[in-house]
Amino acid sequence: MNYDQIFQTALDALHADGSYRYFAELERRSGRFPKAFHHGLDREVTVWCSNDYLGMGQNKVVLDAMHKALDETGAGAGGTRNISGTNHYHVALEKELAALHGKEAALLFNSGYLSNWVTLGTIAGRLKGCVVLSDELNHASMIEGIRHSRADKQIFRHNDVEDLERRLKALPADVPKIIAFESVYSMDGDIAPIKAFCDLADRYGAMTYLDEVHAVGMYGEQGGGIAEKLGLSDRLTVIEGTLGKGFGVVGGYIAASAPLCDFVRSFGSGFIFSTALPPMIAAGALASVRYLREHSEERAGQQRAVAHLREALNAKNIPHVGNPSHIVPVMVGEAQLCRELSDALLKRFGHYIQPINYPTVPRGTERLRITPGPLHDDGMIDELVEALDVLWQEYQLRRAKAA
Amino acid sequence: MNYDQIFQTALDALHADGSYRYFAELERRSGRFPKAFHHGLDREVTVWCSNDYLGMGQNKVVLDAMHKALDETGAGAGGTRNISGTNHYHVALEKELAALHGKEAALLFNSGYLSNWVTLGTIAGRLKGCVVLSDELNHASMIEGIRHSRADKQIFRHNDVEDLERRLKALPADVPKIIAFESVYSMDGDIAPIKAFCDLADRYGAMTYLDEVHAVGMYGEQGGGIAEKLGLSDRLTVIEGTLGKGFGVVGGYIAASAPLCDFVRSFGSGFIFSTALPPMIAAGALASVRYLREHSEERAGQQRAVAHLREALNAKNIPHVGNPSHIVPVMVGEAQLCRELSDALLKRFGHYIQPINYPTVPRGTERLRITPGPLHDDGMIDELVEALDVLWQEYQLRRAKAA
Ligand SMILES: Cc1ncc(COP(=O)(O)O)c(C=O)c1O
Ligand SMILES: Cc1ncc(COP(=O)(O)O)c(C=O)c1O
Repeated sequence: MNYDQIFQTALDALHADGSYRYFAELERRSGRFPKAFHHGLDREVTVWCSNDYLGMGQNKVVLDAMHKALDETGAGAGGTRNISGTNHYHVALEKELAALHGKEAALLFNSGYLSNWVTLGTIAGRLKGCVVLSDELNHASMIEGIRHSRADKQIFRHNDVEDLERRLKALPADVPKIIAFESVYSMDGDIAPIKAFCDLADRYGAMTYLDEVHAVGMYGEQGGGIAEKLGLSDRLTVIEGTLGKGFGVVGGYIAASAPLCDFVRSFGSGFIFSTALPPMIAAGALASVRYLREHSEERAGQQRAVAHLREALNAKNIPHVGNPSHIVPVMVGEAQLCRELSDALLKRFGHYIQPINYPTVPRGTERLRITPGPLHDDGMIDELVEALDVLWQEYQLRRAKAA
Repeated sequence: MNYDQIFQTALDALHADGSYRYFAELERRSGRFPKAFHHGLDREVTVWCSNDYLGMGQNKVVLDAMHKALDETGAGAGGTRNISGTNHYHVALEKELAALHGKEAALLFNSGYLSNWVTLGTIAGRLKGCVVLSDELNHASMIEGIRHSRADKQIFRHNDVEDLERRLKALPADVPKIIAFESVYSMDGDIAPIKAFCDLADRYGAMTYLDEVHAVGMYGEQGGGIAEKLGLSDRLTVIEGTLGKGFGVVGGYIAASAPLCDFVRSFGSGFIFSTALPPMIAAGALASVRYLREHSEERAGQQRAVAHLREALNAKNIPHVGNPSHIVPVMVGEAQLCRELSDALLKRFGHYIQPINYPTVPRGTERLRITPGPLHDDGMIDELVEALDVLWQEYQLRRAKAA
């Protein structure tokens, strides 16, 4: 059997429909962000699609903490958390994350993907008869966690309180239930009705599981996410986040009650059987979380950049999806065109925006997803919108209605 | 419904049977390894259970590379591999890993756990009718990957060529097959009959998937693992490894044909939808792999320490499991006793060996698992064996037969 041939055939199909992914080979240059060196083009470009949303990846406080911890503790953890891999910095970071979200405890994972997959997989898998009510636009990591649990799953319409209530009402009272959803949805930038979902959870005896991956660091007085901003943190059973986006490093976590965290710690295969994050990564994340609890300049700068970008796009009648978050989606609707626009932006204008195609978004909703941050100044934003305007003209793309 | 009560009840059962896990809170001190500071005891201890097998976590070449990359590129990758997260160091590391194993390509993951889970999950899940033949002692990450794929699974007896052949023979010729196994099994230290398995794969048209997590860096002229040592690398379809044990940093990878790696890159959810490893982690791992391809002192030092430990244990008639690897299991056979011995070693003698209990090993095979490395000198080893001898006497434990 020629296995490589089978793999190649599947890849050929991606090439044929324009959804094959080419990775841009960048070189982040600390201190220059959002500029980066593009190895294919051999030039510096402006990055508009990074999830280092606040530029914390080059924050001096974070880098100093990592250099220091690297000197102190070395490169890696040297073991799973149970077998010699728990270091002082892991413990301190878990404490800090619990405090950030006003929870009893927190648990670290090697990525946000793992935190969702392991936590939902473990809880839903081990609570007898558990039903997971999952928003239809939930992230792959939640979907895979639920799938892994083999629990019953009900998919409710995106952000739809009525559909969720209808489903909850139909379930027996004595069955364990989890409502799983996100705060800021990363591809559309819309935000869940968290309070209404918590009310339903109370009414029907369900747990709430909130993915705040695209909100932590960025919303709330201390960067605790949308739940903090709305004063709802204590109403959520689990708040899940990443250390790799707003916080600029890598890793994921949950914050919840002590028994829940201990349960996942004790039974979650993907937590137990894997080398812990390097202590110096935990040290960097700890510095980042502490910094963003105390400083709001980065959040203010991000809001400023988002507002300026939206205004500039409006001035040129370039259509973008309205939402209350920092994510600015410019819809294209076709994989091949999306790639062409992205290529032209990059090669002719030095602006890097990765095309977002299937399977990250549904076919037909291909887009340029722009994530302006505090380090994108008004000049950079104006240049980007100029370039988009030129391309919109050349390609005769649909304009927004003039206001 | 009181969910915390349900979680607590499950945890209480672990307490009751002695398998509840207490994490030792250590502080690795770069340059002092295998010594580390123990926060609970407030003293320095000798670590005997680390999987930083070769001490690469404090190797100067690795640390220098990480400091340099941290200055150059900052803290994190800032995105998934597809969306702004691919950096020069990721690409260079994948090239180096492919070369290490004599393969066309390699693909990086955030952990060895993820590399197994995603690769097996994706390949077995997407090849129509695929059957996975899995060694009964395979690691949790492989088991979960196979489970995730929902492919048919056949579990063959550990390292048993005949049982595997019997099963292969019974399967239709035109069905895709994967033989999944490890080289060095981490808890017993025994080694798979790789050549015989490859012969069977050829005969019955199966792929071979080899987990070399506990061998890479440590075996073979260049640290390419047992397959390299035996000259079998080219006969394996996939070689999977970690960057967090022998190489001392964190992360995982596969090395295989270009179409296979591209297939997993393009379809593996756990690869696609997660923030990439920080470039400076890739830089550290790259330095470590390059170093161990060129230096064999660490491997020689590890072999020396293993031989000395085994001799010293023999001299005191302390029973340990014979095997051809660097893993020295001292069997205890009972969770509570295992913990007591571990506690006494730590508190009275300053030797840290985490007790290995269920679910890491089957109940009844609880053990102290010792992993001596090049930085454990003969004096340290003798002290450890002295301490074990005292405890063997006090607890009246079974001795090995005198030679
Ligand atoms: C909603 C959501 N949850 C979880 C993740 C995974 O987090 P991480 O990148 O830390 O693995 C992502 C993105 O990567 C995400 O968009
Ligand atoms: C055989 C085996 N495979 C894979 C892994 C996972 O590797 P990592 O620790 O890099 O996640 C481990 C141990 O942790 C292991 O023992």
